[in-house]
Amino acid sequence: MTNLTFEKEISALVVIDPYNDFISEGGKVWDRLKGVAEANQCIPKMVQVLDTARRAGIRVFYALHRRYRAGDYETWKYVAPIQQAAWNRKTFEFGTWGAEIPSELKPGPGDIVAAEHWCSSGFANTDLDLQLKKHGIHKLIVVGLIAHTCVEATVRYAAELGYEVTVVKDATASYSDEHMHAALEVNIPNYASAMVTADEIVVAISSLAGVEVAARS
Amino acid sequence: MTNLTFEKEISALVVIDPYNDFISEGGKVWDRLKGVAEANQCIPKMVQVLDTARRAGIRVFYALHRRYRAGDYETWKYVAPIQQAAWNRKTFEFGTWGAEIPSELKPGPGDIVAAEHWCSSGFANTDLDLQLKKHGIHKLIVVGLIAHTCVEATVRYAAELGYEVTVVKDATASYSDEHMHAALEVNIPNYASAMVTADEIVVAISSLAGVEVAARS
Amino acid sequence: MTNLTFEKEISALVVIDPYNDFISEGGKVWDRLKGVAEANQCIPKMVQVLDTARRAGIRVFYALHRRYRAGDYETWKYVAPIQQAAWNRKTFEFGTWGAEIPSELKPGPGDIVAAEHWCSSGFANTDLDLQLKKHGIHKLIVVGLIAHTCVEATVRYAAELGYEVTVVKDATASYSDEHMHAALEVNIPNYASAMVTADEIVVAISSLAGVEVAARS
Amino acid sequence: MTNLTFEKEISALVVIDPYNDFISEGGKVWDRLKGVAEANQCIPKMVQVLDTARRAGIRVFYALHRRYRAGDYETWKYVAPIQQAAWNRKTFEFGTWGAEIPSELKPGPGDIVAAEHWCSSGFANTDLDLQLKKHGIHKLIVVGLIAHTCVEATVRYAAELGYEVTVVKDATASYSDEHMHAALEVNIPNYASAMVTADEIVVAISSLAGVEVAARS
Repeated sequence: MTNLTFEKEISALVVIDPYNDFISEGGKVWDRLKGVAEANQCIPKMVQVLDTARRAGIRVFYALHRRYRAGDYETWKYVAPIQQAAWNRKTFEFGTWGAEIPSELKPGPGDIVAAEHWCSSGFANTDLDLQLKKHGIHKLIVVGLIAHTCVEATVRYAAELGYEVTVVKDATASYSDEHMHAALEVNIPNYASAMVTADEIVVAISSLAGVEVAARS
Repeated sequence: MTNLTFEKEISALVVIDPYNDFISEGGKVWDRLKGVAEANQCIPKMVQVLDTARRAGIRVFYALHRRYRAGDYETWKYVAPIQQAAWNRKTFEFGTWGAEIPSELKPGPGDIVAAEHWCSSGFANTDLDLQLKKHGIHKLIVVGLIAHTCVEATVRYAAELGYEVTVVKDATASYSDEHMHAALEVNIPNYASAMVTADEIVVAISSLAGVEVAARS
Repeated sequence: MTNLTFEKEISALVVIDPYNDFISEGGKVWDRLKGVAEANQCIPKMVQVLDTARRAGIRVFYALHRRYRAGDYETWKYVAPIQQAAWNRKTFEFGTWGAEIPSELKPGPGDIVAAEHWCSSGFANTDLDLQLKKHGIHKLIVVGLIAHTCVEATVRYAAELGYEVTVVKDATASYSDEHMHAALEVNIPNYASAMVTADEIVVAISSLAGVEVAARS
Repeated sequence: MTNLTFEKEISALVVIDPYNDFISEGGKVWDRLKGVAEANQCIPKMVQVLDTARRAGIRVFYALHRRYRAGDYETWKYVAPIQQAAWNRKTFEFGTWGAEIPSELKPGPGDIVAAEHWCSSGFANTDLDLQLKKHGIHKLIVVGLIAHTCVEATVRYAAELGYEVTVVKDATASYSDEHMHAALEVNIPNYASAMVTADEIVVAISSLAGVEVAARS
């Protein structure tokens, strides 16, 4: 049986790319995601997990993609296909609604927002690893978008860097069941210690509310 | 059309985990890989690409998994599932035949062997990025095992770190067509600029043989 | 003799922390730096090198310290002394004049501004290494502040990561001649291939103006 | 007052480069180090701290420099001065006595030996950060050689990466008092939370012997 024990002082929730362009009606990528996202109730489940984590006193970290700014990529000699696509459609364009986060998923007081990432992993070329270490975190609960790109990339990096990862499989979405299958059944289980539902993680962490965190340093 | 131009001075071949345990009859994981590997002629194609790269004067880098040694993992508080599996079966056990590389795929003079990796990415916690930079490399041609774990992880990291990647899709293998599909069709095309066959890459780099490398520094 | 050859396509200027708090009358740390900075004409020499690099077509990268924002450090379990000092005096406070860059040293069109760093190295927990690789850069010319902290840290990291570094020794400053000595004579010469004056670097790179950059990729 | 509290489960001793070439009569660099090392009793103090850490149940990590092997550096386009020096004198030549560790400072059962580093920092391009995280470590006690190169580099990286560092100032050595001053008084106090003597650290950690480590995960 999977161990779903989370000690408040070493556990964190990581929320990946909850931008309007991904998860809101009218967002640039929403049409490609909404089939899966509406079927598994991804957005309300992200909200449910986020609210529960906050009530339980589990710190929240945001891993957010680079918001497109004029000039981005133009001088690069090497551009990965996924970056080319982001460039073409100016996903998460800085200053626009698409690059904003819906109010129910916005960072709040005490949440940590890591530096923006340029590709898929929330760790690569950012301060996410530093911020987690500065807070003494070793266990990550991961929700967000997109399952086979940024979520999988962040989970893979987390495992490579030494974190223990739990993925909330219905608090993520992708372009099709095939993409979800590749991420959630073929790949991520090699790197995440647990694959759980939102309901399961809510039960696991709700009990932490009210628990005092022991001083550690 | 994909650009398949490789300048000798900035291009390299990266060979991932060609251990007997993966690719030789009697290896610990061979039975799970041989269905795909024999169907696509993965091993002879790895050899073909390696030989061609050497003749063309393209430098070869090896990204090799940690060979199991007694005591590994025992004191870790956090062990990813893929590490637990490697621990359980003592894959690539140091000093045994399974952790050796068949002679036709062995590192030769002038090849660079990066420090061993503990999880899946050849870059994580190793000197692979350093060695590539020290040789002025920006473009990687990738062959090896296993498509959806170490190969995909190394390609993802390469893209995150700024390299341009070409994957030789029949010079890799995995447990099933489903695993190959997840790696080669769902995920890696987001990070690799080109997905080619061994025959295609051989044509692309053969022409470099005899070409002088211009001095750069 | 030191080789001072810089090929435009693989060379860059890195400007470190030219904030008002460091280099302008009234800045929070200026009083501690101005003795050395006025004696060696550090600021005009930074401007001279920057202007020459731009005219020569050498790309400019900025490595900038985290601008202090309310809440920074408050939840960290581990705070290094240099971070504690930055926290105490709110150096480079976001939105204030001290966190601005004087107009003659401001980033211009085509310059790359890396993500802000939290400690001293412009590379740690930022996208500086990525940005340099995306532009094909291998050789760095370094100017800026403070010699024994951010400059030395960035040079040390650059060497560790595989870059070739030239430090402009009169385009930096520190708290005293003793601090300058520790940085410029005891430590940095182990990691930087060349220690030059602003006049020397200006001569070395001026000749590149008008030189066509050969296509590389 | 400096806090010298070390919780066993999150604290570690890091031993840097205790090779014969550095610390034993006849070693290639010993003549340059012995003036300082004999004056401050560096070697016996390293032994004293190591023995005490083991008795106290504080885990020991080794950060060891690349042992020179034929072919090293030869194909690199960019070689830092400190690497050039190591290359010239073949410091820590693999298979020779100079690359061995005296018996009283050798890694023992349960100690973790990180992958070898190519420049000065024990963290750069190695698995040291991973190994520390896998063991849940946040606080480092540092001893070893050489104060202004590998020790300072490792301490700087540790701080950049989020660790809390204590340096044992008489369990290190360098070429002269001037070098010691640059490292121990000018630079390292910006990154290490505490600078202590061997006697002080022995008192601080001796009390941990016999203390049960609370389960954490």
